[in-house]
Amino acid sequence: MLKLHGFSSSNYYNVPKLALLEKGLPFEEVVSYTGVGPKYRPEYLQKSPLGKVPCLETPEGFISESLAILEYIERAHPEPSLLPDTPFGVAKVQEFSLFIELYFELVARRLIPNLLSGRQADPAVLKEVESGLTKAAAALPTLSSFETFAYGDQFTLADIAAILNLPVVRNVGNRFFNKDPLAAVPGLSDYCARMEERPHVKTIRADAAADRPGFMAHLKELYGI
Amino acid sequence: MLKLHGFSSSNYYNVPKLALLEKGLPFEEVVSYTGVGPKYRPEYLQKSPLGKVPCLETPEGFISESLAILEYIERAHPEPSLLPDTPFGVAKVQEFSLFIELYFELVARRLIPNLLSGRQADPAVLKEVESGLTKAAAALPTLSSFETFAYGDQFTLADIAAILNLPVVRNVGNRFFNKDPLAAVPGLSDYCARMEERPHVKTIRADAAADRPGFMAHLKELYGI
Repeated sequence: MLKLHGFSSSNYYNVPKLALLEKGLPFEEVVSYTGVGPKYRPEYLQKSPLGKVPCLETPEGFISESLAILEYIERAHPEPSLLPDTPFGVAKVQEFSLFIELYFELVARRLIPNLLSGRQADPAVLKEVESGLTKAAAALPTLSSFETFAYGDQFTLADIAAILNLPVVRNVGNRFFNKDPLAAVPGLSDYCARMEERPHVKTIRADAAADRPGFMAHLKELYGI
Repeated sequence: MLKLHGFSSSNYYNVPKLALLEKGLPFEEVVSYTGVGPKYRPEYLQKSPLGKVPCLETPEGFISESLAILEYIERAHPEPSLLPDTPFGVAKVQEFSLFIELYFELVARRLIPNLLSGRQADPAVLKEVESGLTKAAAALPTLSSFETFAYGDQFTLADIAAILNLPVVRNVGNRFFNKDPLAAVPGLSDYCARMEERPHVKTIRADAAADRPGFMAHLKELYGI
């Protein structure tokens, strides 16, 4: 059986987890906080080269990086599909997912240590993050109208990218800039509310809440926060 | 015919360009420096949401983000394939490509403005970049032995990621840290030398050299450097 290594408070971990749930594939979760902080367990580095979560254990070996894991899941278990049925559609879903990861998630992520620890953020970093998120939010409507799904007329990997990563952007915005950087994106707010009603998304949120004490205990051990 | 928008000095642009060349697909190059600097042409933003290069013009519309463009090229024109023939192999190629982009290219990229302008770099940024590249270089042998190709026994998208992005890392290392951050990666130096002998890689390098004056003139106009 496939084994997913990581922890449910991680939005990166939840990307392949939600894909596995939506496809109805059986999998085992192996709780591992080892990707967080400097205390990597050496054996984990053979699975995930930088010690990051998630990684997927398959019959053929380990795969790290969320987007690569999705590629495996989709190709090894194509039905039900989480991709459109044309090459152009697949590429647009990939473009959307990369856009969310590179210009929203990786930008907002710079402030996550401050969000978790309560420590003051560097003013220069704050300025860069705010500017980056503002530009990305202004560009997002070019990629999606969020009318039904993030792309096309079915639930795809684009929706997984959006609903798991955009809450991180909201949290960072509300905490450091007193505003939701995504508030002005047409249709996004209703879209997110609809997606939260999906049963597997509810499972992801419930599992994240249940994992929170374990994750916080791990952070405390590492950083004393 | 497919049209690739961007410019040949850009390693991002060269990723899909090399894939198109290796697959023997006809395409037209539309030279556009518009993704560089703040002077975006508004009409380009409808093609590439953040004004970045490259973007691919297909009969069905535009696609931005190198990895998404590769997805289209590979799915729309599967032969000759630039991917292994198993789901696990495809995912490992994707993992390798993401690793190169996220932990080498995006890290080294922070110093490219300084590399181009000759302006002093922020010491804190220098420290972060050096530390990031050192960690990534130590982890790289987990993903590839570089014996023949970057992954498996055929030329794939993993090789495209390696040979187009790693020279940026070398340039940044040599300029700012007086060393090649990749020097200790087993097999990499010979591998890179072998790849440079490929005819289409030579085309990429020649086109980059030919584009250099145009690119520098564009930078001068934008930044006065």
